[in-house]
Amino acid sequence: MFEITRRDGLARIGRFETRSGVLETPALLPVVNPKICTVSPRELYDVFGFRALITNSYIIRNTPDLRERALAEGLHEMLDFPGVIMTDSGTFQSHMYGEVEMTNEEIVGFQREIGTDIGTVLDVFTEPYWTREQTAASIETTLERTERACELKGDMMINGVVQGSVFPELREDCARRMASMDIDVHPIGGVVPLMEQYRYSELVEVIIASKKGLSPDRPVHLFGAGHPMLLALATLLGCDLFDSASYAKFARDDRMMFIDGTFRLQDMQSLDCNCPACRGHTLESLRKADRRVRTKLIAEHNLYQITSELALVKRYIREGRLWELVELRCRAHPALLDALRTVGMHSGFLERFDPLSREGAMFYTGPESRGRPAFARYESRLMGRYVPGSKRAVLFPDGGKPYSRAYAAEFDRARKAGYVPVVTSPFGPVPAELDEVYPIAQSLFPEISDRETEEESERITEEFLERMGFEEVITPEEIPEGSEEYDADLIRARAVARHQFGIDAADALLRGEVELVVSRKTGKIRNVVSDGEHVLSMRAADGLYTLREEGARRILSAVPAPRLRIVVSDDAVPFVSQGRNAFCQFVLGGDEGLRPMEEVIVTDGDDNFLATGRAVLTLPEIRSFRKGVAVKVRSGSGEEP
Amino acid sequence: MFEITRRDGLARIGRFETRSGVLETPALLPVVNPKICTVSPRELYDVFGFRALITNSYIIRNTPDLRERALAEGLHEMLDFPGVIMTDSGTFQSHMYGEVEMTNEEIVGFQREIGTDIGTVLDVFTEPYWTREQTAASIETTLERTERACELKGDMMINGVVQGSVFPELREDCARRMASMDIDVHPIGGVVPLMEQYRYSELVEVIIASKKGLSPDRPVHLFGAGHPMLLALATLLGCDLFDSASYAKFARDDRMMFIDGTFRLQDMQSLDCNCPACRGHTLESLRKADRRVRTKLIAEHNLYQITSELALVKRYIREGRLWELVELRCRAHPALLDALRTVGMHSGFLERFDPLSREGAMFYTGPESRGRPAFARYESRLMGRYVPGSKRAVLFPDGGKPYSRAYAAEFDRARKAGYVPVVTSPFGPVPAELDEVYPIAQSLFPEISDRETEEESERITEEFLERMGFEEVITPEEIPEGSEEYDADLIRARAVARHQFGIDAADALLRGEVELVVSRKTGKIRNVVSDGEHVLSMRAADGLYTLREEGARRILSAVPAPRLRIVVSDDAVPFVSQGRNAFCQFVLGGDEGLRPMEEVIVTDGDDNFLATGRAVLTLPEIRSFRKGVAVKVRSGSGEEP
Repeated sequence: MFEITRRDGLARIGRFETRSGVLETPALLPVVNPKICTVSPRELYDVFGFRALITNSYIIRNTPDLRERALAEGLHEMLDFPGVIMTDSGTFQSHMYGEVEMTNEEIVGFQREIGTDIGTVLDVFTEPYWTREQTAASIETTLERTERACELKGDMMINGVVQGSVFPELREDCARRMASMDIDVHPIGGVVPLMEQYRYSELVEVIIASKKGLSPDRPVHLFGAGHPMLLALATLLGCDLFDSASYAKFARDDRMMFIDGTFRLQDMQSLDCNCPACRGHTLESLRKADRRVRTKLIAEHNLYQITSELALVKRYIREGRLWELVELRCRAHPALLDALRTVGMHSGFLERFDPLSREGAMFYTGPESRGRPAFARYESRLMGRYVPGSKRAVLFPDGGKPYSRAYAAEFDRARKAGYVPVVTSPFGPVPAELDEVYPIAQSLFPEISDRETEEESERITEEFLERMGFEEVITPEEIPEGSEEYDADLIRARAVARHQFGIDAADALLRGEVELVVSRKTGKIRNVVSDGEHVLSMRAADGLYTLREEGARRILSAVPAPRLRIVVSDDAVPFVSQGRNAFCQFVLGGDEGLRPMEEVIVTDGDDNFLATGRAVLTLPEIRSFRKGVAVKVRSGSGEEP
Repeated sequence: MFEITRRDGLARIGRFETRSGVLETPALLPVVNPKICTVSPRELYDVFGFRALITNSYIIRNTPDLRERALAEGLHEMLDFPGVIMTDSGTFQSHMYGEVEMTNEEIVGFQREIGTDIGTVLDVFTEPYWTREQTAASIETTLERTERACELKGDMMINGVVQGSVFPELREDCARRMASMDIDVHPIGGVVPLMEQYRYSELVEVIIASKKGLSPDRPVHLFGAGHPMLLALATLLGCDLFDSASYAKFARDDRMMFIDGTFRLQDMQSLDCNCPACRGHTLESLRKADRRVRTKLIAEHNLYQITSELALVKRYIREGRLWELVELRCRAHPALLDALRTVGMHSGFLERFDPLSREGAMFYTGPESRGRPAFARYESRLMGRYVPGSKRAVLFPDGGKPYSRAYAAEFDRARKAGYVPVVTSPFGPVPAELDEVYPIAQSLFPEISDRETEEESERITEEFLERMGFEEVITPEEIPEGSEEYDADLIRARAVARHQFGIDAADALLRGEVELVVSRKTGKIRNVVSDGEHVLSMRAADGLYTLREEGARRILSAVPAPRLRIVVSDDAVPFVSQGRNAFCQFVLGGDEGLRPMEEVIVTDGDDNFLATGRAVLTLPEIRSFRKGVAVKVRSGSGEEP
């Protein structure tokens, strides 16, 4: 039903199949009030390109003529909307106005009868000011009703709403219990009060806790989130669907949404908008327009703001730069900056989904950038996988990149004197031999540094020097004369292999006599030949290796399973060994530690080599998806094993 | 010729009068190559609303048919452009291809003959890699030629180009010497290489040095700056005019400008643009379009990006929030972040122009926000104008705002025990009585603080405690029981008066018996009555005072001239004393320390009271402008003195 086509960490561009067509995610569903259509469903489809909308089944059921028409014609014909229709269940009405005069069974049944594509359980809304006990109790009701709804849904898809207020453990638990039910989409519910009160930091906690419990193969819907300013952040955290009632509500109130906030028409000093709705209008002409015309126009303007931000979010996902966009967007309000800083506290969790490398340089936008998973990953691999060639180090200040070119003469002097050259970068210490590995060389920082990044770098450097057992640390000025011989390329070849595959794998890959093929043009390592076998090739773009078959076979012998492996079922063996991609449904198991874009060996159930490739998904993702590519295979063994 | 209508620090919205109409600044002048009109001047005027353009007189002079037509018809008719035409002189051609076969006199004369509105001297382009001596020598030539051009310009306006490469002292000196010549517009020249090489931090130094030397009454043009990403920053630093050749150059090269960078059509993954040029196009349709059609369309797209950013910049100036926009924009590239951090190092200079308060809250966007002048100003007034009521302080952590409401009970206990309650805010220490003064209460910070802001706050707090001679500093938990009596409103009334007007003025204002009129609804101070005279009123919005006539008279007796005064000539006396605004041309002198929005007393030459009001401009600005409001008068003495 749901397949990932592009990803950037937890963010994803997905293909969600429904009986009313395929929806590309991230997508926003405009909320259509069946009684007041500010912008008609037909226009939403034809003019704005919305392929899905959301409407309220409770209102329809309680409005006799709508109810009759919906039952007679079906929802799609009644609304004149050929796309996907999701319906809400009256949870909010029930919450606001006391018990509604219907049961969960009735409203789920009604949604099915009127032909809703994705219906919603009558879940219990949890308020952020509720106690933990109150919240926990209400979740039990929501879970029971959801279970019942799954039995009743028939061929309708069902929304299983994750509740749990601001208690992350309750959210995660609720999500986990729902993950085992036959649910199609997971809205994260009860978050509107958080958004209304600018409690974005708690919103981040809520989304992350929910994502931890949910299964990756179902779209996640952030219920009630429709402001363009939030879309990038919520997408980064793995939300796929959004909805907006505000586009129309705000319009009725003469409020225009912009990426930097919402402004009242009467307070605005000028209309600086090139959107198709505003084009040709001035502030004056808009103010003077007939109320109905104006409301429609502002609603359209609001929809254009949403569509253009969503398009931008997708562009940044495709470019692998969504972090950059989120870091820009989160400067629009200090409460969003809090949210960004909160995201940074979860970099351990986010690191599991973060691609190992990406095209193009990483841009640092401020100390908050240190919260990106790439920083945590570099630090942990450095500490766990680096082996210093000497117990003496020279510490260099940050400089031009790659460091080994900028500091060529100094590094040479250091090495001749028997010292390891180490640059104190914003990532922490970078030994000369790791300076071309992503993201060290592929990142841009301001020259004027800030205290937080400086101090973090110092902290990591101190820890590094101690852990590695350095006995002497000097400045570049103090380098003595020396004449030790060294092979910089070999040091690099080995250090990168350790950094990428681990120490044991590197030992197997670079054993015996090692020969390096170096590019004449760039001077960079291209191939690693060990004992006469071409085991590794190095990509110039990110300084990381691709595994060759001989290299993969060495890892299989030297490194215990399941590390660095993805295991496929016998059905897939003939295809994968011929170089075809490995698909999720054929994967039996593998390395839990694999990250997206990581080099991986595909094996059969007996740990026989089938192919080398790059992981597209993490193992938990692969397990949960029924379709889609798990490993992009580079080359197969070519044999029927 | 040039008048400021709105300002936000050095940034300004201006009205620039030329013989071809009035230009609202900040404005961007598209560069039109007279040989290749990608978008015709008529379209630039009619469709895009550009009221000025720039073209190259050197090319026209060297192209026989253009030369002939320009001389016969005049430039405006030849180009079919009814707006303002600025011409460049061939400096760049001369610089790139060696000496051009014409003299400064010839090209200035030619520009005048063809009816240019604003002509340019044949100045000498300085390259950033030149030595200081080379640069200094070339500036002498530029200055001589500029002087000569001023003699020759006739009724044409003339550009006096500030050169000086990356040497701030040379820039400032060049600017200062030009300020005394009869020049109409000041381009800052020789900056294209800096922009091409992403040396934005040096660009900031160059602009600030130039602004220091220039006279505020002439528009400043940042030559060659046309990327939308730079407009907010350059405007913040006081640039009024920009030009762009890139919109067309990039278009010929299939490069599309966006606010976050420039992208090649072939590299783009989707076309996510709602601008009128792109509307209806997909990436595919644009790629397949006929080359000429495509170039024009991309040029139009680029122009729309520029116009919409310029409109946004103006909106933020009007809202007094340009800093916020600049802080967002400068996250698009680490080199821009460097530029922003460099701006922060000049907060002393920028503070002179920064309004004392503004409508709406100040948003903190990251540690770079500490570079805003409001931070430096608060610190300096606190250190110089605060008088503690006791030598014992209680330090509170940052909390809800206003602090005196959030910490009402704790502050009361502290005061009863004889302690001054002080909150350690991101601005530094805030004594309870100053908590409603702008920008303390009118600012929003994230709850999760960063190290730089925390450490700066600690540093200022330590300095404060020492300077003020506090002998005991305790935490809120350590407050002992006490029963001292105090009058919180009176403490506040006096502290705010000191903070706003200085200690001596405050002593005069709040002498003898002081009575406070407090709002029943908000509990806030409204009026200060001293010895039976209503001397001050307090604004609820920014917690600062407006001066009443009685208060102003007390300041005149107690505080030596020219402090807190603006002195007008006899001609203006009857008008100002009747409550009319004080205009620049009638100002004789005043307080050099006055900031925009500051409360001020208007006097005649004998220091007699005429009116109270708020300064719109600083004194150096008032001196340089020939027209426009200097002081917005609130009320006059009503007497003919």
